[in-house]
Amino acid sequence: MDALIVLNFKVYDESTGEKAVALAKACDAVAAETGANIIAVPQFSDIYRVRQAVRIPVYAQHIDDVKFGGYTGSVLPEAVKAAGATGSLLNHSEKRIKLAEIDSGIQKLRILGMTSIICTNNIATTMAAAGLGPDYVAIEPPELIGSGISVAQAKPEVISGSVEAVKRINPKVRVLCGAGISKGEDLKKALELGTEGVLLASGIIKAKDQMTALLDLVAGLK
Amino acid sequence: MDALIVLNFKVYDESTGEKAVALAKACDAVAAETGANIIAVPQFSDIYRVRQAVRIPVYAQHIDDVKFGGYTGSVLPEAVKAAGATGSLLNHSEKRIKLAEIDSGIQKLRILGMTSIICTNNIATTMAAAGLGPDYVAIEPPELIGSGISVAQAKPEVISGSVEAVKRINPKVRVLCGAGISKGEDLKKALELGTEGVLLASGIIKAKDQMTALLDLVAGLK
Amino acid sequence: MDALIVLNFKVYDESTGEKAVALAKACDAVAAETGANIIAVPQFSDIYRVRQAVRIPVYAQHIDDVKFGGYTGSVLPEAVKAAGATGSLLNHSEKRIKLAEIDSGIQKLRILGMTSIICTNNIATTMAAAGLGPDYVAIEPPELIGSGISVAQAKPEVISGSVEAVKRINPKVRVLCGAGISKGEDLKKALELGTEGVLLASGIIKAKDQMTALLDLVAGLK
Amino acid sequence: MDALIVLNFKVYDESTGEKAVALAKACDAVAAETGANIIAVPQFSDIYRVRQAVRIPVYAQHIDDVKFGGYTGSVLPEAVKAAGATGSLLNHSEKRIKLAEIDSGIQKLRILGMTSIICTNNIATTMAAAGLGPDYVAIEPPELIGSGISVAQAKPEVISGSVEAVKRINPKVRVLCGAGISKGEDLKKALELGTEGVLLASGIIKAKDQMTALLDLVAGLK
Repeated sequence: MDALIVLNFKVYDESTGEKAVALAKACDAVAAETGANIIAVPQFSDIYRVRQAVRIPVYAQHIDDVKFGGYTGSVLPEAVKAAGATGSLLNHSEKRIKLAEIDSGIQKLRILGMTSIICTNNIATTMAAAGLGPDYVAIEPPELIGSGISVAQAKPEVISGSVEAVKRINPKVRVLCGAGISKGEDLKKALELGTEGVLLASGIIKAKDQMTALLDLVAGLK
Repeated sequence: MDALIVLNFKVYDESTGEKAVALAKACDAVAAETGANIIAVPQFSDIYRVRQAVRIPVYAQHIDDVKFGGYTGSVLPEAVKAAGATGSLLNHSEKRIKLAEIDSGIQKLRILGMTSIICTNNIATTMAAAGLGPDYVAIEPPELIGSGISVAQAKPEVISGSVEAVKRINPKVRVLCGAGISKGEDLKKALELGTEGVLLASGIIKAKDQMTALLDLVAGLK
Repeated sequence: MDALIVLNFKVYDESTGEKAVALAKACDAVAAETGANIIAVPQFSDIYRVRQAVRIPVYAQHIDDVKFGGYTGSVLPEAVKAAGATGSLLNHSEKRIKLAEIDSGIQKLRILGMTSIICTNNIATTMAAAGLGPDYVAIEPPELIGSGISVAQAKPEVISGSVEAVKRINPKVRVLCGAGISKGEDLKKALELGTEGVLLASGIIKAKDQMTALLDLVAGLK
Repeated sequence: MDALIVLNFKVYDESTGEKAVALAKACDAVAAETGANIIAVPQFSDIYRVRQAVRIPVYAQHIDDVKFGGYTGSVLPEAVKAAGATGSLLNHSEKRIKLAEIDSGIQKLRILGMTSIICTNNIATTMAAAGLGPDYVAIEPPELIGSGISVAQAKPEVISGSVEAVKRINPKVRVLCGAGISKGEDLKKALELGTEGVLLASGIIKAKDQMTALLDLVAGLK
């Protein structure tokens, strides 16, 4: 029951403001009930209120490569930590960043005692990310994101290939996978392929009943 | 006493997390005591907690040109509004954006009932911004930002020229000025030059005593 | 016969390398035969060889906001001038830039004795661009670019509105229009609406016979 | 005598337009006289004329992640190839790109039969780049670029560490180093540390006599 479920709230209507708090509470309830390791990843402006409302970990969706100073409008790592985030996604397919920024972001998160999850799009970029030594790499083939077609079913070779490549380059780096994942069977399959969890979003957030969708998902852990 | 004082918190150590709340409370106290119109502009992740702590208006430092959807890591206008912001800076010199993004940002803020402040760097870009019809244009010669040398003293002709140009293009647009402003005399001079207030940051945030600095500033309103 | 026809080569297969030279020669022949003012706007790496092959003016598609120095991979204004360009597009819908960069680009082109054409997407951004004082503003509603539906037929009020707004803000600025333009009647209509010419691309470049398409276009000048 | 000398022309006055051609001819003469493998890397708009003037290989400073189509102002890989480039730098410290763009750039260059040189800033990013399988990785500690202090003297452990890391991840990838290199002894030291050549710029371009500087550099090959 150590598998990780990272729920990216993105910037959907169903996961903004009060609805972000409600969704995080649903995650919190499911985690408490089932023992699942669920991480909530809300927008920057929702981190603080979500953090106040739940016991599960809260991560940021991104951090900028800035330090204390004159960087109006940037996302300071120290600020999302102060708001309660204990980790961050980096290089999500909707927020790709430069190689050097991924490297410095990983280092900065480590200094702050925060967990880093680097998103990648194929085996090659997964190998590259592994070379930087983050805590997690999350492989998400972009063509399947939001598709409803699970990467674990459609591209198992990309996942197992990523797991193998990462183990060869840096065995301390753990692998997640994402894109099209929403059901327990997708999670189960992802774990069978050697990952340590999943990164998902619309499959839960846009579900008619988010709580039911979460319960269906974590059923894949058994 | 209608002049506007917009305090950009930037991402300084002295204005992040709990210190952002403390600074906003100082602004709130000075506003209550003196009747000054002060606006707090904290980081995205501090908007909610600052908003909960004060009665003065809270603005965002920036918004991204995105709508509800798959935009991980972006700053959704609806999200900063949900956190309590009632306006936003746009195109700050430390977060320059594209012309078409300034235009769509102004329109979006208007739809959301929020106030727009477009930052510019010279008379020409001030004229351009005025053509887009925002609520405010804030002229800040970049070479004076953070310099301690007040734009109102060093470049009065840029301010008065901006005021004139804006009035000619769109008299509904109000003009602020910024860069190097920290003292009451700077604010007084800015108002004499035809602006309706100031945008400032380090002069207050990095002051030994922020409260004293704020009181010295608003003394310029008398 | 003073109307301007600006042909943006974009980066199509049909307008790259030797084909860029052939297309520019077709423009040159039509210009020589009909007296039309045609400007060729090839890719950076084709400017020099196009310039060597024709007598019509050659413009760049974009310039970066850099000066002589360590800016590897940037498009130095002085370099495109050295290659033979006598003007440049700026802020094309496929290469939007920041407001301050448009301003400094216009100033740089003027210093270099080159012509500036600022692309815009609606009346508001056209007004903004006019405030910066370029040589030309080219209004192109993005939804019609490459559509085959002429802006002059589909949105005449956007064009005439832009012409009026520009005249009010800075009468020295001339107005072009673009998007969906390919035929003589489109050009004729654009001129009737008060523009001084057109900016076009795929209607000519992707035509079965580029020379025939050009001749059909310039027929609209009569 | 197989070591590679890659001369990045950047966008200096001394390496633009006719001066780019003159500099490339100096490289060509030195290559012919000494047998050194020198590659000229001029600006996009100079590639064609430089290519026409010399026999040594000519590379681009950067390519954009675009294909034939509507990408005004972008640097199409096929276009720099049509102009005569047979390789390209990617991710130079002055033109950092996203991880996914480095990956697709390497693939695109390979499809076009062109050589890829990925610039990196430390051992971690060098490992990451090696994971993507380019032809070359060029490690350049950013703090030494343009400093006149040779990386080979100041940070030999970064170079040898990079060489070792790359060999472990992908032994087909060759390593270059750069930053502060201008003299024959710098080149000699770089080769001793296990690299297969150097990437350099200002040390040659800004030299009082470029030809003399080139001859001094290649003396390090003996």
